[in-house]
Amino acid sequence: MALKAQVLYDFIAEAGNNELTVKEGETITITNQNIGGGWIEAQNSRGEVGLVPEDYIELNKQFPAFQGAGTTAPTPSVGNVAAADLSFFDAYAPASTPAQNQASNGNDPWSVWNADPSGGSSNNWASNPEGTQTGKSAADPWGSVSQGHPQAYQGPGAEDDEWDDEWDDMKSTGGYAESESGDGGALQRGGTPASSMKISLNKFPGFSKSGPELYLLCKQLAKGKDKLAIYNGEVGPVWSYPEAQLDCVVADPKKGSKMYGLKSYIEYHITPNTTNRTVNHRYKHFDWLYERLLDKFGSAIPIPSLPDKQVTGRFEEEFIKMRMERLQGWMTRMCRHPVVSSSEVFQLFLTYKDEKDWKMGKRKAEKDETVGVMIFSTIESEGQDLELSEVDLKCEQFSRFTKAMDDGVKEILTVGNEHWKRCTGPLPKEYQRIGKAFQNLSSVFNSSGYQGESTLTDAMTAAGKTYEEIAQMVAEQPKKDLHFLMETNNEYKGLLGCFPDTIGVHKAAIDKVKEADKLVAAGKITTQDKVTMAKRVSTMSYSLQAEMNHFHSNRIYDYNRVMQQYLEEQVKFYETIAAKLRQAHSQFTTM
Amino acid sequence: MALKAQVLYDFIAEAGNNELTVKEGETITITNQNIGGGWIEAQNSRGEVGLVPEDYIELNKQFPAFQGAGTTAPTPSVGNVAAADLSFFDAYAPASTPAQNQASNGNDPWSVWNADPSGGSSNNWASNPEGTQTGKSAADPWGSVSQGHPQAYQGPGAEDDEWDDEWDDMKSTGGYAESESGDGGALQRGGTPASSMKISLNKFPGFSKSGPELYLLCKQLAKGKDKLAIYNGEVGPVWSYPEAQLDCVVADPKKGSKMYGLKSYIEYHITPNTTNRTVNHRYKHFDWLYERLLDKFGSAIPIPSLPDKQVTGRFEEEFIKMRMERLQGWMTRMCRHPVVSSSEVFQLFLTYKDEKDWKMGKRKAEKDETVGVMIFSTIESEGQDLELSEVDLKCEQFSRFTKAMDDGVKEILTVGNEHWKRCTGPLPKEYQRIGKAFQNLSSVFNSSGYQGESTLTDAMTAAGKTYEEIAQMVAEQPKKDLHFLMETNNEYKGLLGCFPDTIGVHKAAIDKVKEADKLVAAGKITTQDKVTMAKRVSTMSYSLQAEMNHFHSNRIYDYNRVMQQYLEEQVKFYETIAAKLRQAHSQFTTM
Repeated sequence: MALKAQVLYDFIAEAGNNELTVKEGETITITNQNIGGGWIEAQNSRGEVGLVPEDYIELNKQFPAFQGAGTTAPTPSVGNVAAADLSFFDAYAPASTPAQNQASNGNDPWSVWNADPSGGSSNNWASNPEGTQTGKSAADPWGSVSQGHPQAYQGPGAEDDEWDDEWDDMKSTGGYAESESGDGGALQRGGTPASSMKISLNKFPGFSKSGPELYLLCKQLAKGKDKLAIYNGEVGPVWSYPEAQLDCVVADPKKGSKMYGLKSYIEYHITPNTTNRTVNHRYKHFDWLYERLLDKFGSAIPIPSLPDKQVTGRFEEEFIKMRMERLQGWMTRMCRHPVVSSSEVFQLFLTYKDEKDWKMGKRKAEKDETVGVMIFSTIESEGQDLELSEVDLKCEQFSRFTKAMDDGVKEILTVGNEHWKRCTGPLPKEYQRIGKAFQNLSSVFNSSGYQGESTLTDAMTAAGKTYEEIAQMVAEQPKKDLHFLMETNNEYKGLLGCFPDTIGVHKAAIDKVKEADKLVAAGKITTQDKVTMAKRVSTMSYSLQAEMNHFHSNRIYDYNRVMQQYLEEQVKFYETIAAKLRQAHSQFTTM
Repeated sequence: MALKAQVLYDFIAEAGNNELTVKEGETITITNQNIGGGWIEAQNSRGEVGLVPEDYIELNKQFPAFQGAGTTAPTPSVGNVAAADLSFFDAYAPASTPAQNQASNGNDPWSVWNADPSGGSSNNWASNPEGTQTGKSAADPWGSVSQGHPQAYQGPGAEDDEWDDEWDDMKSTGGYAESESGDGGALQRGGTPASSMKISLNKFPGFSKSGPELYLLCKQLAKGKDKLAIYNGEVGPVWSYPEAQLDCVVADPKKGSKMYGLKSYIEYHITPNTTNRTVNHRYKHFDWLYERLLDKFGSAIPIPSLPDKQVTGRFEEEFIKMRMERLQGWMTRMCRHPVVSSSEVFQLFLTYKDEKDWKMGKRKAEKDETVGVMIFSTIESEGQDLELSEVDLKCEQFSRFTKAMDDGVKEILTVGNEHWKRCTGPLPKEYQRIGKAFQNLSSVFNSSGYQGESTLTDAMTAAGKTYEEIAQMVAEQPKKDLHFLMETNNEYKGLLGCFPDTIGVHKAAIDKVKEADKLVAAGKITTQDKVTMAKRVSTMSYSLQAEMNHFHSNRIYDYNRVMQQYLEEQVKFYETIAAKLRQAHSQFTTM
């Protein structure tokens, strides 16, 4: 197939990786479109053949971007990210090629939090009165891919889930398979770092048409061990919490490779505190888990997106460390959730015994039909049925709060981002210049030939060096304190971005119940159906309240912890500077 | 005389001051050119008559600027300043009119130290091998007046030395009268804050033509009490220092007024530690003293310029305080100098008994003929005559050192200026935004309706307020520490700016002695003259060495003191921040 393509961005091949250097504007011939992993094989006009990242070329102007091998159609996929977000990954790679720098925002790891491309969480806050979740709140995630400059796949070291099929002998079903393939390795997975959860009801035929009434009017509620209990706690309705808090450690990222070292992947060790036995998982397995949790619990519980699948490259170690840190954060949050942590699929992920166990568990989880709004059919509350007005009020209140907190969190991220830039950019440069100026003057003084000069010049040199040390401290400080403040707020931004979808399910149900009289009059439902609906929306409200109380309690814990940590490090920082300056001061002659 | 003038800048009259509002580009008719004090009376096209600052109008395009009443010819005058420097005076007047702001550099009191308009000290460092001092090293100080926008004379409160003649019953002679009148009140006196001293030899007929040979070949050396002795100290040749260090306090600036309150001036109380009796002086008397010291000692001793005559206005108190602080600094430096402080004219200034005493002393000082290079005729060193090569070497060495220090000092001023801007501009704004972001999130949390929220929200609000306090501290800190570091370096910049002239006198003398053989051969001088010249240039070298040793000892004292002060305040600053943050930290729940 002599398919031609246009090169969109300069790409410089890495030696020994069968890559092909191409220039923006160049026309190349695709020789193999089925390489996978975000790569295609192409031939240039000089007859040279090699691999090129598929996102660097454009096959057909009608498609916003080339979809890569394995994708049957260029359908928008949840698993792809707007190019604007890619600046994040350039942040730790100041030495990247000029072409890559075009897409970057400089040495600024938080810039992505300010950008809110279509499909990002901020759009989710647009009112969604119809309660339709799928597709609507997530604007085309591909829309802006061609606007920016995608981060290059930097040769070996990048993940290539496509080729990793020794384990995944059977294709995942539905949207997951699509997102996996569309993902392609060259672009990271998961939308914006703080993107909302996408409740993918519509991959189960019939669900998308039915909305909340599927549960409101269903005949059969769950029984026995599948029940999720809600108790009346001190703060109101609460989930049933396990006696011992589940926790796990994500550690030891190990690189595996295939295709004779051309493609590689990272495997993590995960050790839960219950079994204390380590299991191995690759990012794609986390991603599978995320999809399962989203399907099953997303209508009742905000399931935050996974940290992005990041490209690797020169600064691979830092990328891996950062991703691991965020996977740990995600796992910790899931472990802390009483409903999620005790679910079969989550337990499978943490405690599967062997490959066979894992495979069987996977198949079972993928066949689970208690997903979407049907999760509410498993919920049992000890509270009395609530009036619709009260249900409505609670829902409104939670919506207002989460929206306001989303604004507050974004403000901190914006301000923190500015501060990060100043602390790592102009401020240390200035302290360095002050330090140099003192030292320069000291060295001029030293040349005076005047007796008794040395006490002053030694002291001035020391003072100058102290300001150089302060410069260094200032530049390194954000990693010690601001980093955690930003990470926590970023995590909350992601979590809060899920609420519009979750709350949307509730609002849709409330609206249905409000319509009940009309539906009875029209003969569409019976009077008994109306009673059932009111009862069930009350159950939904208990579920939402329990979830909000869970959220609040976690929020208070998290912010208390992160603020303490931030202030503690800030105190240390200023005290260290004061001590250094005091030392510098002591070297001058007392008069 | 229906003299027409063009208005250069908008000027808004202050009510009750007989002023006339004029607009840039407007043509006005001069009705009285003899108002003085930097003002002219003019009539606009609507027939309205009032006072307008003369620097706001242009009489004749052939003159760079209108010279004002009392000036006989538009000769460049030492006492005028390049417009670029005026930004300094806008610095403390952020609320000035837009027209004035055009010339300002924002809230940046040090910006003037970066600007080095023609006539500024940096030009003095251009090599001046001929040793010609007057006019040459000071590029036309009027040159840039029309480039910028002169600071307006802000109505009453501005000084008007022109009208102050109840004391000064006789005109000063020479350059002083010129500089006084050209000054005109609307522009401050003294050139750039760091402008070099101008050794005005050429107002004594014959001096300008003769240069250093006037001394090298003079018949009569000074005798008796006029002798200035140089001893061999530990560090080399040193001036004879008095047993008790003279000092004085400049205080209590008092406003006087005349012309029915239309014009006013400031009078300072000066109290020397010798008599402990207060004398009064206006700025113009300091200026007179400066001119006398420059004439008398300038060839041997760098006499730094006075602090600029500043315009007054809305922020008059701050201006007066700043000028007083700098006059104090200038007087302290003069008191510390053994030669200057013991001179008759300086003693007169500090200890005159009454008006009659002052007047008689003034007349005597103005008639002093031991000025210019003739000061060397009063110097007597106990050292052996030096070889010319040694004299040359010393002179070169001092020139190199002072040039290098000038660079070092300017670097500190530049860096300090940057730092000042950051500390008073973007940095506190950022801390304030961090503070606000914490408080905003806290207030969102407060609206959660969740129990047990208040400990966190109280602590977060306190942390937010702490960062607002830090913002305030950051903005105010430069006045507490950087200010003195900048003032000291600015003073040294001024002092160092005098060295090229002083050293130029020495270099010219050395060159003359090097030519001696030729002059003897040409029959222009005798062999005896040649011997005398060599002896005298040796005396000059002792004088320069004594002066450099004086400079070094003062420099070590000053920098030791200012660095200590700076670091002390910096330590306090960081310790206070650390303490505040520790307090904020303690309000969070310990977990």
